[in-house]
Amino acid sequence: MAGGGPVKALVVVAHGSRRESSNDEVRALATRMHTRSGMKYDLVNCGFLELAEPSIPGGVQQAIDAGATQVHIYPYFLSAGRHVVEDIPAEIEIARVANPDVAIEILDYLGAAEGLADFIFSQIGNRRLR
Amino acid sequence: MAGGGPVKALVVVAHGSRRESSNDEVRALATRMHTRSGMKYDLVNCGFLELAEPSIPGGVQQAIDAGATQVHIYPYFLSAGRHVVEDIPAEIEIARVANPDVAIEILDYLGAAEGLADFIFSQIGNRRLR
Repeated sequence: MAGGGPVKALVVVAHGSRRESSNDEVRALATRMHTRSGMKYDLVNCGFLELAEPSIPGGVQQAIDAGATQVHIYPYFLSAGRHVVEDIPAEIEIARVANPDVAIEILDYLGAAEGLADFIFSQIGNRRLR
Repeated sequence: MAGGGPVKALVVVAHGSRRESSNDEVRALATRMHTRSGMKYDLVNCGFLELAEPSIPGGVQQAIDAGATQVHIYPYFLSAGRHVVEDIPAEIEIARVANPDVAIEILDYLGAAEGLADFIFSQIGNRRLR
């Protein structure tokens, strides 16, 4: 976090599950993304809509408390259901009101990714069948 | 489907939603995957665990009725919850019993993909912010 440029954070936002192992999968993804983020983000963490911690505003706040001045929200969801269309923007609005000087932007959700079909094919070749 | 080799099908298996637009996203993905499957699969279709048609055994049967002799099941899920660990294998068992001569295998689910972190970063660069 040296220099005078913006400190960029990515917050991976997931639904949250009663199964802690599912939440841990999201946390592990965020950790793996942090490791591989290269120059793109200084921080990567996560936030959950429900059933797990931190909450979405909580995850954003963690990033800001760690120095982030620019926050991207990545909805780790497969379809544009109510959570993506309504609930996540509402949670982000809470974070924006609490941090008016921080640029907080919501990226497209995973399921909308143009390259998803090709990615799936690329991964199928690597997978063990069971 | 010329030649004497196996006819390969991929069935994209999703949860299913009350929002038909979410189910249509899965159907559109399957169509896109069919278009891009190249030599890998002769057919790509989908199946839903609940709330949408076709069911998982129904989607497998459609593929077999269209000539598939080898079927891969792709769980379009982000975490190894009950649906991935128990429910999908149980549905596939129904399809296997009904089609003992067809090789039906379950691939790893989307969230388990090794390259997912890198894929997400590659897509973020392409995304419009909102």
